[in-house]
Amino acid sequence: MENFDFFNPTRIIFGKDTIGKLSVLVPAKSRVLVCYGGGSIFKNGVYDQVMLALKGFAVAEFGGIEANPQLGTCEKAVLAAHAHRADFLLAVGGGSVADAVKLIAASSGTPGVPAWDLVLDSTKMTAALPFGVVLTLPATGSEMNNGSVISRIDPIDKRAWGNPLVHPLFSILDPATTLSLPPRQVANGIVDTWMHICEQYLTTDNNSPVQNRFAESLLRTVREEGPLAMANPENLAVRANLMWAATMGLNGIIGVGVVADWSSHVIGHELTALYGVDHGRSLAVVFPGVLTLCRVSKRAKLLRYAREVWGLTDADENVLMDKAIEQTILFFESLGVPTTLRGCGIPSEAADIVADRIAEKGWMLGEGKDIGPKEVRQILIARS
Amino acid sequence: MENFDFFNPTRIIFGKDTIGKLSVLVPAKSRVLVCYGGGSIFKNGVYDQVMLALKGFAVAEFGGIEANPQLGTCEKAVLAAHAHRADFLLAVGGGSVADAVKLIAASSGTPGVPAWDLVLDSTKMTAALPFGVVLTLPATGSEMNNGSVISRIDPIDKRAWGNPLVHPLFSILDPATTLSLPPRQVANGIVDTWMHICEQYLTTDNNSPVQNRFAESLLRTVREEGPLAMANPENLAVRANLMWAATMGLNGIIGVGVVADWSSHVIGHELTALYGVDHGRSLAVVFPGVLTLCRVSKRAKLLRYAREVWGLTDADENVLMDKAIEQTILFFESLGVPTTLRGCGIPSEAADIVADRIAEKGWMLGEGKDIGPKEVRQILIARS
Repeated sequence: MENFDFFNPTRIIFGKDTIGKLSVLVPAKSRVLVCYGGGSIFKNGVYDQVMLALKGFAVAEFGGIEANPQLGTCEKAVLAAHAHRADFLLAVGGGSVADAVKLIAASSGTPGVPAWDLVLDSTKMTAALPFGVVLTLPATGSEMNNGSVISRIDPIDKRAWGNPLVHPLFSILDPATTLSLPPRQVANGIVDTWMHICEQYLTTDNNSPVQNRFAESLLRTVREEGPLAMANPENLAVRANLMWAATMGLNGIIGVGVVADWSSHVIGHELTALYGVDHGRSLAVVFPGVLTLCRVSKRAKLLRYAREVWGLTDADENVLMDKAIEQTILFFESLGVPTTLRGCGIPSEAADIVADRIAEKGWMLGEGKDIGPKEVRQILIARS
Repeated sequence: MENFDFFNPTRIIFGKDTIGKLSVLVPAKSRVLVCYGGGSIFKNGVYDQVMLALKGFAVAEFGGIEANPQLGTCEKAVLAAHAHRADFLLAVGGGSVADAVKLIAASSGTPGVPAWDLVLDSTKMTAALPFGVVLTLPATGSEMNNGSVISRIDPIDKRAWGNPLVHPLFSILDPATTLSLPPRQVANGIVDTWMHICEQYLTTDNNSPVQNRFAESLLRTVREEGPLAMANPENLAVRANLMWAATMGLNGIIGVGVVADWSSHVIGHELTALYGVDHGRSLAVVFPGVLTLCRVSKRAKLLRYAREVWGLTDADENVLMDKAIEQTILFFESLGVPTTLRGCGIPSEAADIVADRIAEKGWMLGEGKDIGPKEVRQILIARS
């Protein structure tokens, strides 16, 4: 195990009928800007629950935050927060809304620095508005960490950033809010959760049994509960278990003291920025390619993954690794998530284009910093 | 899964050679009261590391905090803190020192209320001094939670209490500080850790797969690493894994949304208060009796425990449960920890005496509140 520094002060309120607790969770007398996405919260009743709980607060609203939240949208929201003299932000929605609110909070707290500069170098942050989250989609883990991913159009880009100043003050996780999610979003969320766990687990083994077993615990739970959520969308207990697994997958607990990969995410972000593919789908395309490429460096963990997550028992270790990768693909496909570029409608020249962009940025990816442009091309060609 | 509210803002600094970080972790210009136990920190070099890191701070010391920290000792420390005009406390030692510092912090922050009143009713707390921990013994989990156990002599008692105001600001966990622990303390710590996990896991099943698997992850790790720590006391990696498992065992993560038992702890506290038996040993005596008594209510979890923790595969479920209890006893005994009253030098009349004390307090114990004086007597007679 490596040395580590762990700090996660976000309070989690979990369970059915907990949105009403906003009335005591939001600091008294706050001027609140409620931020949300495309309007699903109007259909599923979450908007009404939130507004009822915020009665008595000075509330303004900012809607229209898109999946893969855009810089320009965040910049508009900063102006709205300023106009309302907001001193508290509330994200109501999925990870995209939470991610956007983190940048809105940071940018509001650090006037004079362009928002994109904060994304590129978050050490420029000096303060952030406090904020809370009402989560309606289990996937990104953004509700209990200080990370965020922001996209922009001109020039086109999608980047992850983070700062200890943008931990949510609290997050309310009511699994009932997820009952009405479209199947595609549920499936994407399952893949995203899977990938957050794997990026921290399927790396180089460094004798961290607690972290390994916690990651395997989450993967086994997602493997069981994910298909149940697809098959029985009305089952609240399944939704609750899936929601908690998603949060635990990226709140730092399984990542302490181990090395992390994140190459699938970085390559996937490029695919989403360029081709608009859903984030979860981009990961499902890239990951099998990364595993195949990194069979040697990831060998010890791939074998654990085969045995502990997939229950494989073959004596031949190469067969074990092959089968583990195959099972992963089958799992994603069983959720209706395509695992090839073609399946996502992405042209095969994406391999060259993404490789060139990685080269331009000078990035070497993966836990061993051994995935460069050439390897990225190889990964994507194998997944064409 | 039940609804829950999780909040744990303690920052963890984990790893070798991290004590020096005190210089930046302790708030600048603090007047620090350094609290410690019987003096082991002078022998293992921890005292010197702490004092070096605190150079430039106004430091006073309070030593002599005993295992099972006493009310009277805490009261003296409150006077010492006051005399030093301390605005920050630093616990250097094991869980006993951390537990004591929590009461010192609470009592210093809530003048006018007797310290024992805060133990009996922590809602009387209005504030607490901030404090940090340098941990030297993995066991109690006190370094990353807001609980504490305090003993008193006249009248004799030992009570658990807690309050959100007494979360440590930070805890430094350097596994190298545990290399020189006496085997008896290592063994007691292993049993204590085991029991914290089991009190939250071996209860009534309520469909919480993440929590179940996390608990099993920790138990399997302790089962492996515990004996290694006893056999190879110089192995730092083993100590690191054991230390992290102990912290994760009682920082709230495995306890969210599930029902907890704690009957072994409550009964064990009585044995320690009355007979001075080590805390870990008291638990090793009581727990097998609780499991035997609660075979029906704990059936689903006992079967999981047998299969997932002990790897038992018998087809007959009664055999599985018997063997799981037997394996637990053998595990504790293999560490040199006795599992009977006689083995701990406690007279068999303890069964009556403890039962009477539980009756006096009007307590019903266990996750089902179905362990009263009669059952306590039965448990202890079975473990005589």
